[in-house]
Amino acid sequence: MPYDEALVHRILDEARQCVMAELELVLERNRRTGFGALHDLIADYPFREGKGLRPAICLAACLAAGGRTDQARLAASALELFHNAFLVHDDVEDGSEFRRGTVTMLRSHGVPIAVNVGDATNVLAMQLLLDNTATIGLRKALLVLREVERMARESVEGQAIELHWIANGCFQLDDSDYLRMAYKKTCWYTVIAPLRIGVICGRPAGVRTLLTEELVPLIELGYLAGIAFQICDDVLNLEGDEAVYGKEVNGDLWEGKRTVMLLHFLRTTTSSKRARALRLLRTPRASKRAEEISWLRNAMEKAGSIAYGRTLSREFAARAAETDSRLSGLFEDNDERRFLSEMLNYVVERPK
Amino acid sequence: MPYDEALVHRILDEARQCVMAELELVLERNRRTGFGALHDLIADYPFREGKGLRPAICLAACLAAGGRTDQARLAASALELFHNAFLVHDDVEDGSEFRRGTVTMLRSHGVPIAVNVGDATNVLAMQLLLDNTATIGLRKALLVLREVERMARESVEGQAIELHWIANGCFQLDDSDYLRMAYKKTCWYTVIAPLRIGVICGRPAGVRTLLTEELVPLIELGYLAGIAFQICDDVLNLEGDEAVYGKEVNGDLWEGKRTVMLLHFLRTTTSSKRARALRLLRTPRASKRAEEISWLRNAMEKAGSIAYGRTLSREFAARAAETDSRLSGLFEDNDERRFLSEMLNYVVERPK
Repeated sequence: MPYDEALVHRILDEARQCVMAELELVLERNRRTGFGALHDLIADYPFREGKGLRPAICLAACLAAGGRTDQARLAASALELFHNAFLVHDDVEDGSEFRRGTVTMLRSHGVPIAVNVGDATNVLAMQLLLDNTATIGLRKALLVLREVERMARESVEGQAIELHWIANGCFQLDDSDYLRMAYKKTCWYTVIAPLRIGVICGRPAGVRTLLTEELVPLIELGYLAGIAFQICDDVLNLEGDEAVYGKEVNGDLWEGKRTVMLLHFLRTTTSSKRARALRLLRTPRASKRAEEISWLRNAMEKAGSIAYGRTLSREFAARAAETDSRLSGLFEDNDERRFLSEMLNYVVERPK
Repeated sequence: MPYDEALVHRILDEARQCVMAELELVLERNRRTGFGALHDLIADYPFREGKGLRPAICLAACLAAGGRTDQARLAASALELFHNAFLVHDDVEDGSEFRRGTVTMLRSHGVPIAVNVGDATNVLAMQLLLDNTATIGLRKALLVLREVERMARESVEGQAIELHWIANGCFQLDDSDYLRMAYKKTCWYTVIAPLRIGVICGRPAGVRTLLTEELVPLIELGYLAGIAFQICDDVLNLEGDEAVYGKEVNGDLWEGKRTVMLLHFLRTTTSSKRARALRLLRTPRASKRAEEISWLRNAMEKAGSIAYGRTLSREFAARAAETDSRLSGLFEDNDERRFLSEMLNYVVERPK
């Protein structure tokens, strides 16, 4: 399905500008009072040009719920920081080489500094959420903190499941194993928490008190959209144009990442090809040969595994759109509300 | 100065039992609802027998301020978790081998899992602090969160300063450089935050509202006591009995850690010995030779550097005791208040 590119890009751009301005402010303040070199490193990932999807969803949900940008500015900025902290540590955990068009902090500064910068980025995010009490009041600020705690808990559990698979060489996994892991690792912090936090920040105080039950349908919506997003991300890793995509193409194969495409290939191919693939996947990254990676990439394409992923991501996007159309009472009818719907196709049709 | 061993050990034991019971409860709950293998790993460090100094200070400060144990139980448990999260990451950053008598999580599970377990331990601590609203109310719970944010910010900055020295091979440092780093890295999370959080939790609501100004003297007290503690810790690393101490003796020399003893040695020894020491310190850990480490250890002893550290830590403890004697109005006269004073000598006279 096509999406309204003008609307989606306008809202993404506005959100990115809003968040970047806030982050510049707080980083400049901390740089003056703290250890400057650390704050320069904290700024590295957030100021590499990302999509800014998470803060855009949060700000749009706030405005769609009847709120104002300033009510969700700090929370959206904090979400962007949590995301970047997660990426810095994720790159360490996966031994990744590239992120947003240039080398990862792991490669440029090594494990010790990258671990500490990730921790420091989380602390900065927490600082913004505590400053939030002055803007949205004690009660809402605490509700936001609860969402963040849940989001972070799901993320580390999802990460733990994936690391467990790696440590134990598990490849005999089906889509439901994958979906459970990605629900925790991706969906909560990419879509579910941004949506819920936006609504918490934006609901006008005068109208009626927000009931936590009202936020439940956003879990299903965020799950479906988050899975669509993640599978598309993994497809782009195999199909994307490196210059546009920013990450290392086929990086997931070098890292042995369990994607729906890889799992599909392993369960549908011949036993000799499966054995060859598993031998490659279980080889440490540094000892893998580029020709074998190319072979696997092409074998997956021939087996229809990449098409399978593409189709599955679109199915999830379609189910998300259906769930979205049934949401009622939570949102007003405005551009930001339309962005939240259009974004469901954007996440599976985007070029990067 | 001797200290009241019976009192100090009783309060430490009680605090450890209180916190361990709380942690068992919450870990068991999360193990049922989440990914079990992760929660087993989160439990690893906290259930290795530590001193439990931080929760003991927090609980004692709460009771000394007129509060009850149950008001600080969650905060004290969260502090113990933050401490353990910090240790898991610190061991990754320093490449440490042993922690509390057995191998570090880095050695047993590798970098990726250790990084994630540290993150997960932080999230669990945050969960406890959010549960705290039901026990001590919104206002106090938020004050505690602010203290935790400050504590974590200081810790990552202190860590960043130390990692910066390592990355740049800096050894030309004086005691004031060391004190600034240790104030941030050790004092805030070992003494200052536990004291301040204990008082916040414990001050009876009926008496009078706690003014944040009242907490300021605890920064000086915690700074002096924290430095005394840290220097003593570093002395024990050079002098301790491995079986009692639990960490690798001379591990700091293997890691090239900047301690007041090492800095004293480098600035007071002959230029040829300084050159030999710097050559050793700048050698990657795996290439260091045990005989050279022994040479450095003995040269430091002969140069009076270890005695210098011992004396400096006792001077800080004495200054802490003086500051402690001038605190007024914050604490009642009870066993927990006495523990807070006795603890000032305990931190420099303890065997481990």
